[in-house]
Amino acid sequence: MRIKIINPNTTESMTKNIQSAGEKYASSNTEIIAVSPSTGPASIESYFDEYLAVPGVMEEILKGDHTENVDAYVIACFGDPGLYAAREITDKPVVGIAEAAITISKFIAPNFSIVSVLDRSRKMSEEVVKMHGAEGRCKSIRSTGLSVLEFDRDLKKGLNALSNTSKKAVEEDGAESILLGCAGFVSFVEDLQKELGVPVLDGVSPAVKLAEILVNMRCQTSKHLTWGFPEKKEIKGFNSITKFFKEEIK
Amino acid sequence: MRIKIINPNTTESMTKNIQSAGEKYASSNTEIIAVSPSTGPASIESYFDEYLAVPGVMEEILKGDHTENVDAYVIACFGDPGLYAAREITDKPVVGIAEAAITISKFIAPNFSIVSVLDRSRKMSEEVVKMHGAEGRCKSIRSTGLSVLEFDRDLKKGLNALSNTSKKAVEEDGAESILLGCAGFVSFVEDLQKELGVPVLDGVSPAVKLAEILVNMRCQTSKHLTWGFPEKKEIKGFNSITKFFKEEIK
Amino acid sequence: MRIKIINPNTTESMTKNIQSAGEKYASSNTEIIAVSPSTGPASIESYFDEYLAVPGVMEEILKGDHTENVDAYVIACFGDPGLYAAREITDKPVVGIAEAAITISKFIAPNFSIVSVLDRSRKMSEEVVKMHGAEGRCKSIRSTGLSVLEFDRDLKKGLNALSNTSKKAVEEDGAESILLGCAGFVSFVEDLQKELGVPVLDGVSPAVKLAEILVNMRCQTSKHLTWGFPEKKEIKGFNSITKFFKEEIK
Amino acid sequence: MRIKIINPNTTESMTKNIQSAGEKYASSNTEIIAVSPSTGPASIESYFDEYLAVPGVMEEILKGDHTENVDAYVIACFGDPGLYAAREITDKPVVGIAEAAITISKFIAPNFSIVSVLDRSRKMSEEVVKMHGAEGRCKSIRSTGLSVLEFDRDLKKGLNALSNTSKKAVEEDGAESILLGCAGFVSFVEDLQKELGVPVLDGVSPAVKLAEILVNMRCQTSKHLTWGFPEKKEIKGFNSITKFFKEEIK
Amino acid sequence: MRIKIINPNTTESMTKNIQSAGEKYASSNTEIIAVSPSTGPASIESYFDEYLAVPGVMEEILKGDHTENVDAYVIACFGDPGLYAAREITDKPVVGIAEAAITISKFIAPNFSIVSVLDRSRKMSEEVVKMHGAEGRCKSIRSTGLSVLEFDRDLKKGLNALSNTSKKAVEEDGAESILLGCAGFVSFVEDLQKELGVPVLDGVSPAVKLAEILVNMRCQTSKHLTWGFPEKKEIKGFNSITKFFKEEIK
Amino acid sequence: MRIKIINPNTTESMTKNIQSAGEKYASSNTEIIAVSPSTGPASIESYFDEYLAVPGVMEEILKGDHTENVDAYVIACFGDPGLYAAREITDKPVVGIAEAAITISKFIAPNFSIVSVLDRSRKMSEEVVKMHGAEGRCKSIRSTGLSVLEFDRDLKKGLNALSNTSKKAVEEDGAESILLGCAGFVSFVEDLQKELGVPVLDGVSPAVKLAEILVNMRCQTSKHLTWGFPEKKEIKGFNSITKFFKEEIK
Repeated sequence: MRIKIINPNTTESMTKNIQSAGEKYASSNTEIIAVSPSTGPASIESYFDEYLAVPGVMEEILKGDHTENVDAYVIACFGDPGLYAAREITDKPVVGIAEAAITISKFIAPNFSIVSVLDRSRKMSEEVVKMHGAEGRCKSIRSTGLSVLEFDRDLKKGLNALSNTSKKAVEEDGAESILLGCAGFVSFVEDLQKELGVPVLDGVSPAVKLAEILVNMRCQTSKHLTWGFPEKKEIKGFNSITKFFKEEIK
Repeated sequence: MRIKIINPNTTESMTKNIQSAGEKYASSNTEIIAVSPSTGPASIESYFDEYLAVPGVMEEILKGDHTENVDAYVIACFGDPGLYAAREITDKPVVGIAEAAITISKFIAPNFSIVSVLDRSRKMSEEVVKMHGAEGRCKSIRSTGLSVLEFDRDLKKGLNALSNTSKKAVEEDGAESILLGCAGFVSFVEDLQKELGVPVLDGVSPAVKLAEILVNMRCQTSKHLTWGFPEKKEIKGFNSITKFFKEEIK
Repeated sequence: MRIKIINPNTTESMTKNIQSAGEKYASSNTEIIAVSPSTGPASIESYFDEYLAVPGVMEEILKGDHTENVDAYVIACFGDPGLYAAREITDKPVVGIAEAAITISKFIAPNFSIVSVLDRSRKMSEEVVKMHGAEGRCKSIRSTGLSVLEFDRDLKKGLNALSNTSKKAVEEDGAESILLGCAGFVSFVEDLQKELGVPVLDGVSPAVKLAEILVNMRCQTSKHLTWGFPEKKEIKGFNSITKFFKEEIK
Repeated sequence: MRIKIINPNTTESMTKNIQSAGEKYASSNTEIIAVSPSTGPASIESYFDEYLAVPGVMEEILKGDHTENVDAYVIACFGDPGLYAAREITDKPVVGIAEAAITISKFIAPNFSIVSVLDRSRKMSEEVVKMHGAEGRCKSIRSTGLSVLEFDRDLKKGLNALSNTSKKAVEEDGAESILLGCAGFVSFVEDLQKELGVPVLDGVSPAVKLAEILVNMRCQTSKHLTWGFPEKKEIKGFNSITKFFKEEIK
Repeated sequence: MRIKIINPNTTESMTKNIQSAGEKYASSNTEIIAVSPSTGPASIESYFDEYLAVPGVMEEILKGDHTENVDAYVIACFGDPGLYAAREITDKPVVGIAEAAITISKFIAPNFSIVSVLDRSRKMSEEVVKMHGAEGRCKSIRSTGLSVLEFDRDLKKGLNALSNTSKKAVEEDGAESILLGCAGFVSFVEDLQKELGVPVLDGVSPAVKLAEILVNMRCQTSKHLTWGFPEKKEIKGFNSITKFFKEEIK
Repeated sequence: MRIKIINPNTTESMTKNIQSAGEKYASSNTEIIAVSPSTGPASIESYFDEYLAVPGVMEEILKGDHTENVDAYVIACFGDPGLYAAREITDKPVVGIAEAAITISKFIAPNFSIVSVLDRSRKMSEEVVKMHGAEGRCKSIRSTGLSVLEFDRDLKKGLNALSNTSKKAVEEDGAESILLGCAGFVSFVEDLQKELGVPVLDGVSPAVKLAEILVNMRCQTSKHLTWGFPEKKEIKGFNSITKFFKEEIK
C-alpha cells in the first residue's frame, strides 16, 4: 500500500526526517511518500501560518487521489491542520499526527503531557487536545521556548530543551507518558524515552501504523453528512486545487 | 471611524446585502466598507470551503491596515472563519458575526437556537458555539436544507423555510431567541421577529455595533502571547498577502 | 438616551467614581445617572450582603421604568447581583458589569484573570464566571486581601495591591488580559494597563457602551418565558417595590 | 433536638403541609417548627420572587439562632433560595429541600427527573441541579403548567397533573426516580409512588432526616473562608435582620 | 435496625476499627455488624485488588439478605468498590463510604480535599469523585505516600503524615474540609479536626447515619431498570455466591 | 506474533465467533487465540455479571504472560471489563473492544451511535463512552431489547432487531457511524453496513489490528504509577490467579 505523508510546512529538511520516522515501523509492503506542499510557510507556529499551510495540504491530497494512487494520508503537523477538510475531499483514510499520538498513548498510559515549541503554540496544542476529546487525560502542555526552525538547526540544543521540559512534566505534573508536540521532534523519541522512563511518542510513526490498519480493514470515511464531498461551486483562484474537480467531483 | 466588513465568500450580491445590514444601525460617523476577497469559494458550507476562503480574508485585513486606514474589522460568515488568525495580523479589533450574534443574544434572552442552511453545516455551527463558550445556552441548531446560494436566488422560498424552522426551534426546543446562521439571512430579521414573537438576530448589525464600541473604548488586541504578530519566516506563494510584511511586520 | 447605573451597595463615594467611569466613553447624547439604593449594605462581600442588596436594586429599576424614563440599566457590582430578576421586571436592556467586562475581554484577548478583593469573594467570582459561560477562558481568580471599603479609603495602597496581584496573574497564570473584580477599582484601569502591558478592563465603561448599542439596535429582553414579567401575587412588606405594580404590571 | 423549617413563601396553608411532611419521618425526640417569614411573596416562581423571599429567610435563621435555640434549619422551597447566605450567618447545619431530594435519590436510583410547576420555573430547576452538581443524573425537568397556588387550591387536579407528567418522565425520558419540584407537593408522595412504580421523593422529609444526622454527628458549617460569618458593616434598612448582630456578630 | 458494614479487604484489625467508627454515632436501636469477606486482598490499592475484593462483597450482601436479616449495607473502602453491583442484588439501601463522606461534606463546606494513601491510588480517588459528580467541589487529592497496611501498623507515623498532607490541602489548595480517603483512617478524625480548624470527615460514620435514615424513610433501591435484579443465567465458579439464588432470585 | 482474545463470558459459541472476527483482518504472521475464562457468567448484562467475569479475565492474562508467550491481549466484551486492572498485571498491550471501536470510528466519522442489547445495559455503555472520553462524539445509545443469549440463539431475529435499531440511530439521532455494542454481534457487520450506508464497526477486528501495531511499535504499558504492577500482599482465595505471582511479581 502507498501512504502519503504531507508535512504542511515547506521546510524540506524536516520533510526528510518525517519520511524516516514514517518508515521506521512501516510494514514491508507499505510505501511511504513524504512531501511538502508547493505553497505555505516554512513552519507553523500561529493560526495565520496554519491557514496559509492548509491550501497546499488540500492540493497534495487531491493530487494523491487523482494521479498518485495513494491509499491513505497522514498530515504531519501537531496541530492537525486541515484534517476535517481533508476528510471531505477524499474517502481514503486521513490521519493527523496529534490525533495519532493521543490515540496510541491512551492504550499504554492513563495520561500524557505534550512538550512543544514556542509559548504561543500552547494554545494551539490545547485546541488539538480538545478537538480529539482528550482534555481529561492531558496533564499539561509545556513549551521549550525554542521555535520549530531552531530545533531544525541545532538538534543537540533541542534535545536538551526537550529533555528538561519533559522531566518537569513527569515530576511536577504527574505525566505518565510524553507526546512530542512537533513533527520536527521525531529524531528524539528513543533518547528521550530511555532518559525519562515513561513512554515517549512522536505522532508520525503511530499515524503511519494507524493509516495502515485503516486500509487493511478497508475503512472509508463516512460520506453520509458532515464529511461528505464538498458541494460543487465556483471558486476564485487556487487553480492548482480546483483543476482536480473542475468536472469530476463525486 | 471606518469599519471594513469582509464577506469571506466571493458572491457579490451577498456582499451588498451585508453592506446594508452593516449600515442599518451604524453611527452617523461610521463608514462601512463591505468587500469580498479576490480568491475563494462562492459560498462556505464545508471545512474545505472555509480553508479556501481564509487566505482572501487575511489579504483584506492586511490591505485594510496598510492602505485603507481601517479602524476595525468584521468577518461576515457565521463560522467566523479565520477569526483568531485575523487577530494575530492586526491589533485593530476584529469581530466575527457568529460571535457578535451569540454575544448580543446573551443580554436579552436566556438561550438561543441557531437556524442555518444545509444539514452538513450543523457541525460547523456546533463548533462555532463551542468556540465562543455558549454550549450552555444553545437550545438547538436547526437547518433549513437549503444551500447558501439557493437563499440568495429565491428570497421568498428562503423566508418560508427560515420561518418554519425557527418556529420549531421556539415551540419544540424551547428557544427564547433565534440567531440566523448565515450572513445571507440579513434581509429576513424583521419579518421573522414579528412572526415569532422572540428576538431574532443576524450577526452583521451586532458585529458593527460591537466593533464601534471597541474602537470608542480604544481597545486593542492583546499582543502578549497567543495573538501576537506571527513570527517572520519564509512563505511560499500567497504573494498578495506576503507583500504587506516583506519588510515591515511589527 | 438615558442609562441608569445602579451601584448595589450604599457607599456614595463609590457611586461617584462609578458615575465618572460610566461617563468616560459614553456617547455625547447619553445621559448617565448613577445611584445607590435606599436600602442594603455598605459593600458586597458575602452571599448575605448580596441578598440584602438586591431588593434595593429592584426598587431602582422599577422607579427607572415608571418615573424616570430610563432606556437601559447597568448593575455595577462584579457579582452581577439580581441580574436575571432585573431582566424579569423590565423589558429594557439590563447589563451586569462582570458580564460586560467578560464580554469585551473576549474580543481582544484569548483569556483573562480576575483580580478581586477579599479571599472569600473568590467563590463569588467563580460563580459569576460560570453564570456567563466563561470557565474556559478564565486563567485565575486572585484576591488582594483588601476589603472593598479599604480600597475606597486608601487608593494608593489599593493600586499597589492590585498591581502586584495582577502581575502574578500575567506571569504565573498566563493571563493575557485583566478584569478588575470590583466596581470600586474603576479609577485604576489606565495606570494598571500601562504597567502590565496587557489589556485591563473595569466593567462599568464596557457596560455603558454595551447598554448604548442594545438601545441603538432597539433590543428588548425576550419576554417569551424565563424572563417574562413575574406573575401577579400578594407580597408582604417591600412597599417601596410593590407600589409600582399594585395595579399595572404588564 | 429542634429543627426549624422555613417555608420561604408567605402562604400559611402550605407551611402547614410542610410541617406535616417534616414530622412524617422525624425522630421521636425531634421537634419540628415550620414557619413562613413576615415578608416576601405568596409563592416563588421567578427570580424576582426569590430575591424578595430571601431577606425573610435570613431573619428567621437569625431569630432561630438568637432566641429559639434551634439546632438545624431546612429551607423549604425547591430552588433552595438563600442557602449559601444562610450558611454564612449561622454555624448550625442548613439543608435545602432540592439539595435533600437530589442527595437521597442518589442512594436509591441512578438518575431522576424533576416534576415542577410553571414552564418558567424549569430554568430555576436547571440551576438548582447545577448548583448541586447533579447534571449528570438529571434525565429531565418537566413542568405541569400549573402555578404553586393552583396546586394549593385544587389538590385533585394537582395530583392528576403531577401523575401524567411523571409518567412521561419515566416512560419517555428514562427517569428511574421522581423528585417533586415544589414544597407544595408533599401530600402527593405516596399516591404517586404507588402509581409510578419508581421511588418518588419530596424534599422536606429527606431534609429533616439529613438535618437530624448532621446534628447527631455534631457537624458545623466550615467557617474557614467562603461561608465565614459576614464582615461587620453598615446596612441600611432591614432592621428586623440587623438588630440581631448590631453588637454581637462573631 | 441492623446495618452490616463490609470492609472489602481481609485485614481484620482494620475491620475492628471500622466497627468502632460505625458505632460512634449510631442510634441506640441500631446494631452494627462489621465484617471482612472470606476472599480477597489484605488491602485495596490497585484496580486488580479492587476486582479481587468485589466477589467477596457480593457474597456478604447476599448472605446479609438471605440469612442475617440486614436492613442496610455500608461498603467501607474509599473507592466504593462494587457499589452499583451491590445495588443490583439487593433492594435494601447500600451506601459507599466515599459517597457518604462526599455527601455529608457538601452540607457543611463549599469544597473538600481528599487525603489518601499511595500516589497510585490518586487516580482511583479521582474516579470515585467523578462517579459521585463532585468534580466541581474537589480542590485536590493528595497522597501521604504510605500504604494502607503501613497506616495499620504505625498509627503515630500515620497521623503525622495525614496531618502534614492535610495542612497543605488547606493552605495551598484552599480546601475548606478534609475527607479521609481510606477506611483505615477512622481513628484520626478528631485529632485532625482539632489541629486543622476545618471539618474532617471519615466515611464510615456518615455512611452508617445515611443508611439509618434511608431505612427510617423506607427507601428501597429503584428496581425499574439499571439496578434491577440481575438476569438469571449460568455462572461458573463462585459457588458461595450463586448458592443464594440458585432457585430464588426475584 | 500471538494475540490472545479473552471473551469475558463463558459461552463458548460466542468465543468461536469472536475467534473468526479476530482472524478476519489479522496479519498473516499473527496467531489469534480466543478463550473464555474458567469462571464467570454466561453473559454480561449487569454490574454484578461484570464483577464475576473479571477474576477469570485476570487469570487468563497471567496465564498468557507466564505460560503462553502472548504478545498482546484483547478483552472482548463491550463494557471493557477489567481493562485497567489488566494493564496493571502485565506490561504487554491490552485493548478493549469498546475502546477499539470508539478509537477507529473517530478516524472515519465525526460521530457514532452504539446499538446494544438490553435496556439496562445502556447505562454501562454510557460509562464505557465516558471512560474513553467520547461523550462529545456519541449521538445516542440504543438498545434492541434482546439479551446477549437471545442473539446467540437466533441470528436472523437478531439481525432484524439490529438493523431496525441502527436505522433509527442514523435517521433520528444523526449517527454517521454505528458501533455494535456486543461482542456477539460480530457476524452482522457487513450485512448491516451494506444496508445502512454508513460505516459499521464491531470492536473485535479493530482491537486485534490495534494490538498488532502496538506490538509492532514495541509499545509497553507505562509502569510509572497508575498502572504499575500491584503491590505484593496477602490475597485470600483466587488460587488460580495468585499462583502466578506467589514468588515472582515484578
